[in-house]
Amino acid sequence: MNKGNDDTSYAMNSTVQWEIISFGKTIIEEALLRLSSSTDIKSMGIADLGCSSGPNTLSVISEIMDVVRATCGHLGRPVPEFRLYLNDLYSNDFNYLFMSLPAFYKRLKEEKDIAVASHCFISGVPGSFYGRLFPTNTLHLVYFFSSLHWLSQVPVGLESYALEHLNKGKVYISKSSPQSVLNAYSMQFQADFSGFMKSSQELVPGGRMVLSFLGRNSIDPAAAEACYQWELLAKALMSLVKEGLIEEEKLDSFNTP
Amino acid sequence: MNKGNDDTSYAMNSTVQWEIISFGKTIIEEALLRLSSSTDIKSMGIADLGCSSGPNTLSVISEIMDVVRATCGHLGRPVPEFRLYLNDLYSNDFNYLFMSLPAFYKRLKEEKDIAVASHCFISGVPGSFYGRLFPTNTLHLVYFFSSLHWLSQVPVGLESYALEHLNKGKVYISKSSPQSVLNAYSMQFQADFSGFMKSSQELVPGGRMVLSFLGRNSIDPAAAEACYQWELLAKALMSLVKEGLIEEEKLDSFNTP
Repeated sequence: MNKGNDDTSYAMNSTVQWEIISFGKTIIEEALLRLSSSTDIKSMGIADLGCSSGPNTLSVISEIMDVVRATCGHLGRPVPEFRLYLNDLYSNDFNYLFMSLPAFYKRLKEEKDIAVASHCFISGVPGSFYGRLFPTNTLHLVYFFSSLHWLSQVPVGLESYALEHLNKGKVYISKSSPQSVLNAYSMQFQADFSGFMKSSQELVPGGRMVLSFLGRNSIDPAAAEACYQWELLAKALMSLVKEGLIEEEKLDSFNTP
Repeated sequence: MNKGNDDTSYAMNSTVQWEIISFGKTIIEEALLRLSSSTDIKSMGIADLGCSSGPNTLSVISEIMDVVRATCGHLGRPVPEFRLYLNDLYSNDFNYLFMSLPAFYKRLKEEKDIAVASHCFISGVPGSFYGRLFPTNTLHLVYFFSSLHWLSQVPVGLESYALEHLNKGKVYISKSSPQSVLNAYSMQFQADFSGFMKSSQELVPGGRMVLSFLGRNSIDPAAAEACYQWELLAKALMSLVKEGLIEEEKLDSFNTP
């Protein structure tokens, strides 16, 4: 994702992702209600996996704290301390994210409660969520918003298929992609998702995961609703090749994980 | 500190800090030996407070892991998992630090042990160590190298003293500084250090702190050994004022916390 906060940055171009988050919020609320009601949690570990670096990340945290605070108030329990872990790849713009924390903590103190704000501990956890990120029994709630559909790598063998002109000029699954390309994507997803599920020991017993995926209504993986943007992107890249702005042999390097 | 890794970056100009770390390593080793011998720790929390963004940070972590591994081997105990927290101010270059982690993890696997490497969890904790950073009972070992001598702010009232021409043209304590300036620095240190000690609840009972300070042999706070570099810096800034490269009224903004 583009770093910083200029016109082309992720931070300034993530309103679609916020809409996706809005759909998922009720599910997070339900998960939190069940968590907070079932046991008296003193220290609640929460992780945003694939948090990126925009304002959405801290908005979700703020809403989570509201829900937990309200639930604890309703049950007559003390509000737990919050251990909030922000995860994304090593190359994520954590600097931008961290620089927005002083204003976030200030707002917490002003709008909520000094006691709550002073028991909120935010840290950055860099690395791929397809491997281990946290010690065993660390987390009560894990959520993914618009991140878990990214694979850990371009599917194995895809470049050789592309070289054989089976998927030439495409950056993902398209209407003209042969079954071998579809299989490669499917197998990579299965391998990644199995690896990811092995990390579930990072959750405490009874912990909750909220997974948000990009999906499609059709069973056809090359349906327009799933591939439209990738077809457009591939066409744009091909135009750049024709104009000589990208070397043709570099085209396969745009294959999308 | 200057970000990145070009010629003027902190990462490329921190060999003096590495020498200071080298002096302190035997003390860290002693602390680790006592910790590892006294109890069977399953998950060891270790924090580098004021880690900055150079290669020193990860070198210390690697050596700590070696000491704990050797001690556990000697005692016939399993090596604990390592929770390693890298702290510095919000403006620190965490991006640079995090980008050096894949190579660090790769070296851990190659040079040490895959089991040890896969039980090493590194995270970034942004914020001032003069306030709370961690939940209660999180850490077994905390260390500061060349960081705890920095105050949380320019001492209260110092700018007004400067405006009254009592410390004009200086950026810290100097031979010509009046007692009021010395008192202001002393009071700020006391306030900061007391605040810092209040965070000791972040340590587990029996946890260890290793504090490394810049010191002086003389009791005179304006002794050359303590102020030489600051006197030079103040002279350089005054030259820039005379050459018109810095506005005179901006000089006080260089006061050093």
